[in-house]
Amino acid sequence: MAVGEAYFPDMPVIDGLRLGTSRAGIKTPERRDLVVIEIPEGARIVGAFTRNAFCAAPVIVARDHLARCASRGTAARYLMINTGNANAGTGETGLHDARATCAALAQLAGVEEDSVLPFSTGVIGEPLPMERLIGGLPAAFAALDGTAQAWHEAAQGILTTDTRAKGASVTLQIGDETVTINGISKGSGMIRPNMATMLAFVATDASIETSLLDALLHETLDRSFNCITVDSDTSTNDACMLMATGRGAVVADKDSEALEIFRNGLQRVMTELAQAIIRDGEGATKFVTLQVSGAEDRQEALDVAFTVAHSPLVKTALYASDANWGRILAAVGRAPVENFDVSRVVIALDDVRLVEHGGRAASYTEDAGSAVMARDEITIHIDLGRGEAQATVWTSDLSHDYVSINADYRN
Amino acid sequence: MAVGEAYFPDMPVIDGLRLGTSRAGIKTPERRDLVVIEIPEGARIVGAFTRNAFCAAPVIVARDHLARCASRGTAARYLMINTGNANAGTGETGLHDARATCAALAQLAGVEEDSVLPFSTGVIGEPLPMERLIGGLPAAFAALDGTAQAWHEAAQGILTTDTRAKGASVTLQIGDETVTINGISKGSGMIRPNMATMLAFVATDASIETSLLDALLHETLDRSFNCITVDSDTSTNDACMLMATGRGAVVADKDSEALEIFRNGLQRVMTELAQAIIRDGEGATKFVTLQVSGAEDRQEALDVAFTVAHSPLVKTALYASDANWGRILAAVGRAPVENFDVSRVVIALDDVRLVEHGGRAASYTEDAGSAVMARDEITIHIDLGRGEAQATVWTSDLSHDYVSINADYRN
Repeated sequence: MAVGEAYFPDMPVIDGLRLGTSRAGIKTPERRDLVVIEIPEGARIVGAFTRNAFCAAPVIVARDHLARCASRGTAARYLMINTGNANAGTGETGLHDARATCAALAQLAGVEEDSVLPFSTGVIGEPLPMERLIGGLPAAFAALDGTAQAWHEAAQGILTTDTRAKGASVTLQIGDETVTINGISKGSGMIRPNMATMLAFVATDASIETSLLDALLHETLDRSFNCITVDSDTSTNDACMLMATGRGAVVADKDSEALEIFRNGLQRVMTELAQAIIRDGEGATKFVTLQVSGAEDRQEALDVAFTVAHSPLVKTALYASDANWGRILAAVGRAPVENFDVSRVVIALDDVRLVEHGGRAASYTEDAGSAVMARDEITIHIDLGRGEAQATVWTSDLSHDYVSINADYRN
Repeated sequence: MAVGEAYFPDMPVIDGLRLGTSRAGIKTPERRDLVVIEIPEGARIVGAFTRNAFCAAPVIVARDHLARCASRGTAARYLMINTGNANAGTGETGLHDARATCAALAQLAGVEEDSVLPFSTGVIGEPLPMERLIGGLPAAFAALDGTAQAWHEAAQGILTTDTRAKGASVTLQIGDETVTINGISKGSGMIRPNMATMLAFVATDASIETSLLDALLHETLDRSFNCITVDSDTSTNDACMLMATGRGAVVADKDSEALEIFRNGLQRVMTELAQAIIRDGEGATKFVTLQVSGAEDRQEALDVAFTVAHSPLVKTALYASDANWGRILAAVGRAPVENFDVSRVVIALDDVRLVEHGGRAASYTEDAGSAVMARDEITIHIDLGRGEAQATVWTSDLSHDYVSINADYRN
């Protein structure tokens, strides 16, 4: 299941950036499951990783290699992504395996081992099938290409339980120059990113200093991947990488207009990729926006939004298209808000007001509520009536398919 | 669905305490849905109520009436419980209705209006069907009786989506006297009590001062109803009442032996009632104990236990009897623990060690894991290796039936 039309954009070439895939048979024979991304010399690359304390071996190695490259004054040259196996919960063996796969690609490419950053996604706790993975590298390397088709195949090559390839692209005009931002992402279950998403790779041809690039990544993450949840489960393997080849227009702190154009474009790509994960959430039949306003601060708005977004009772009511607004009210009421005066809370489904003055809105009718609930895309507006801060969070519903997918995942 | 054998104890009479039920047709015709409990004069009564900010009208009125009785130096004489309608999210009308039902029973019984405490459970946001509810009161009042059958019928009369009546009873020897503690509870979904459970009523014939009774209630609650979760959703109507008729043995602060015997007995009743809610959790096919040890403090242990207990991925793996221990590891890793060194964590399913040194335990085999997962009752042991504190939490799995029950709840 997935919500809305499937769509993959026609990605423009980003000069010097190439992608290659192969079918290594890591978990499933004949599945495109290995991706290599080549980054040109002189590019900048920044990343954000899961905050899960049991983070996977590739997360530890990628962070370490990023730091080593930085200390040498260079940037990584290759990203290597496998699906079908997360290399998480694998202890020392997992770290050794992640480094050995980097070494294998480094040898093929003629670069240092720490110029390769590894990423894995799939089942937790199984050892990486080293022979098959390393055996698949030459074909992926030989396939490196910068075309729209290469982007599309790479987006397919990182999927697990996803039913759709996810991509977003914008073309910006900065002064006389055209700047491109392309991105791909994957993720469907175990989605409650914390400082990153399952996996996302975003690239631009703009020229941006590393510290500014890093600031832009975290700023846009906080309003995209960090505002989505399928099932409240933060993954061990989340990573979001942002690469700037530096061959295009300069984006710098001192040019506020260029920076603003770039920031808005990047936010759009990041938000589209994050929303694509929710639209393709495991078993999803609804795409739900939680819009919380009137909060004392942004954290309070996020707390309320995530409390409602994680409520199994709200999620099953959404699945059933049942306007059981009492469950939304109950979830808002248990959110961690100090001195909460619920008589000031207003809750609406799209344009239908549900709750005011601590109870059902006078204007509410069951027919009006049911009409909204029948839609595939619904916004739940919650005004706390306490302040000026707001936040938006996106989530999916809880369906029989979610249970089936996750009860059968390892079979 | 429910886990384990259905069992309802043969409750001894508590002198002076009587229970009566009737079929008022509040939501479903011919269902036993109205319960009156009569408490003798001279008894003490204390309660704990939901912390949900959108708490229901009866919760507000019951708290108010408790306080009014206390200010008059007396205690409430009647509890009135209806199922089928929560009288929550009903604003001013709901408060008026709750008070009017108290007045109706007070008139029948010849007591003050504030000597009646109201409790409601069922669907949120519908007005209380006043005519049917008040119409059912005379029959319930006329049925007042102290027998085991009256206790059993009262336990049936407070159920909603529950599939079983829930009761627990202990008989204690304090000095030369026999003390009885009887309790009933209800709850199956929207279960993540916060300072109380859905509904529980516990009575004893012991003689205990109000302040001590209140302390005992909260102490035993914290290790029973506050340690269970079905779906993380705290109800608007949670309440747990403890009554002591004072006709039996004296339990007082200064007699530490009697106090210890009584505290242990009360804890046993409270824990059995809380566990009965989990065994009968919506769609439950497993009864799961989370035993977290080696924490720096109890709150940290509870945080880890609830993070695992709420993980939809852990719960669907339990439903599938799939030893997908990577999901337990991932849930532990995302728990809110500062400076978490996961290499010290040890995780076991019953007696099968799953995780050590940051990865799969050397001794683990899939066969051993699968054998434990096939059981109906499973303990997940998580040793954080950081300190001496521990906590125990009970939960159920996430099944297709949970989704069906909650998708169809209002139909």
